[in-house]
Amino acid sequence: MDAKDEPWTGPTVGELGELVVLDRVTSRLPQGSPLVGPGDDCAVVAAPDGRFVVTTDMMVHGPDFRWAWSSPSDVGWKAAATNLSDVAAMGAVPSGLVVAIAAPQDTPVAVLEGIADGFRLAVDALAPGCGVVGGDLSTSSAFTVAVTAFGDLQDRAPVLRSGARVGDVLAVSGELGRAARGLARLFRSGVDAHGEPSRAAVVASGLDEDPDVGRQRRPLPPIADGPLAAAAGATAMLDLSDGLAIDAGRLARSSRVTLEISAALDDVALHGGEDHGLLATFPADAVLPGGFRRIGVVLERGAADLVRDGVGVPTTGWDPYADWDGVAG
Amino acid sequence: MDAKDEPWTGPTVGELGELVVLDRVTSRLPQGSPLVGPGDDCAVVAAPDGRFVVTTDMMVHGPDFRWAWSSPSDVGWKAAATNLSDVAAMGAVPSGLVVAIAAPQDTPVAVLEGIADGFRLAVDALAPGCGVVGGDLSTSSAFTVAVTAFGDLQDRAPVLRSGARVGDVLAVSGELGRAARGLARLFRSGVDAHGEPSRAAVVASGLDEDPDVGRQRRPLPPIADGPLAAAAGATAMLDLSDGLAIDAGRLARSSRVTLEISAALDDVALHGGEDHGLLATFPADAVLPGGFRRIGVVLERGAADLVRDGVGVPTTGWDPYADWDGVAG
Repeated sequence: MDAKDEPWTGPTVGELGELVVLDRVTSRLPQGSPLVGPGDDCAVVAAPDGRFVVTTDMMVHGPDFRWAWSSPSDVGWKAAATNLSDVAAMGAVPSGLVVAIAAPQDTPVAVLEGIADGFRLAVDALAPGCGVVGGDLSTSSAFTVAVTAFGDLQDRAPVLRSGARVGDVLAVSGELGRAARGLARLFRSGVDAHGEPSRAAVVASGLDEDPDVGRQRRPLPPIADGPLAAAAGATAMLDLSDGLAIDAGRLARSSRVTLEISAALDDVALHGGEDHGLLATFPADAVLPGGFRRIGVVLERGAADLVRDGVGVPTTGWDPYADWDGVAG
Repeated sequence: MDAKDEPWTGPTVGELGELVVLDRVTSRLPQGSPLVGPGDDCAVVAAPDGRFVVTTDMMVHGPDFRWAWSSPSDVGWKAAATNLSDVAAMGAVPSGLVVAIAAPQDTPVAVLEGIADGFRLAVDALAPGCGVVGGDLSTSSAFTVAVTAFGDLQDRAPVLRSGARVGDVLAVSGELGRAARGLARLFRSGVDAHGEPSRAAVVASGLDEDPDVGRQRRPLPPIADGPLAAAAGATAMLDLSDGLAIDAGRLARSSRVTLEISAALDDVALHGGEDHGLLATFPADAVLPGGFRRIGVVLERGAADLVRDGVGVPTTGWDPYADWDGVAG
């Protein structure tokens, strides 16, 4: 295993067994304050307004991350951040996470501890008060992290993708294109002579100090802006996971509108994924909350989902089944 | 791929891509009645009493199932049943599931459709009204199904593992040892000359008609008995996933008691896992509800977690990290 935070030495999960691993991992996780925490058949989580939002997302070694490019702590951070972002995109406040991890038997326990640290750091930074309330440890030839996240709507209606109205303002919160720039640099300079992800190449190229690579590893979704947007009257919202163009296309089709976006947005901002910002529409007279800034307007549905300078913008992108090259690294 | 319900031919997920696969799979899933269903960043699920229970469990090709022994529909059934059982073990009524699946790119779409069918059949049989409210499709070299299940406590307190009191009756609902008997037959007669799981050997040995093999593939956890036990005053309860002895040991340690079990229980009933029955303790004067029958009594904590005929019974078992042999099949 060739990972960012050396050394990945020490005992493996196969040597220590499930119970010891569980002990060492759970003590590092963010605890939150569930009504009943880990250790029973289920956790019990409060849902003060009689509903909860729920999302699930899986990260697999190879298509979703490479140990040569991300440390275990980075992987934990990103798994937490991407799920928290989906909760925020409904206008909800994160109330808990459950985490299932399948690790090869020769995985050093330090890797699982690093992932737990990443979860704790991400939750502390992005959604303080939230915690990992339960989980599952399993084994697999492919390292896999599956996260399910919950949130509380605080008596507000959920903000769906389908509510944008003609005349609404289109606005975004969070960074655009940084994670994609970082990934492009890793693909360009973080590989060996055969084009395979390489820790040595990352070090030699100084990519650990590149702030965009940092964002690819540890995105900073504006979680608090989700509930703020809901309270400010957002009519539609979603999480920018696959890139502004693709995700704006989803919002446009769900709402049966066309979105016109500012000519000032460059191609990386338009097509770069994994920043996990929030895209939302607001009534024309709304005061945009938090980090939201105007990037366009909602038009009647035309031939294209998305237009810039009067020209349609493609709204398709990466498909894990069709497009992954099969390299893990 | 060598699976039980031939033919696994037809287009692969890599050929069809994520959106088409998603369409073909979601239409076969049990829908339930979430407040907001699949298709947005999150689903929204009702939690009428202001809380919900949550559990997660991952099934990985190799350590958890083998295509030579289980059809996709069996795998879907079992993934649903095992998670529903954890919800029932808290005394809760299942209210929803989210499902994340990672499939190799050469997986026929029919496999994912079969898994969806298994989810639908299991939910219809075990927890009618529940549904799959959300999910995620990803790719991996190891076929992986990660399920998270929710439940509603219906204004009752959750039944934990820690509440057993000296003098309580120990009772069980559901079958004991059948899934383990089925697994033993698969390991004995469902393998080729090298000891590897083999579909041809399963057919030649008539194991498809063996009812215990059927239970190993499609366990029948007594889901409705969970809420019934809670309503009848159960003081402690858990799901029998790893076998009566191991799971009774957990209940005994959590409750700081010793459990005395009936001499009539044989070794397969004691140590066979994966039946997903319910083990519970009730006040001595309680009327045992549903399928519960008395199998012992709660004693003051002694040297052993579990005793039978005055002799301690081992309460340890299979560890996925230490004990999986690495064979997929």
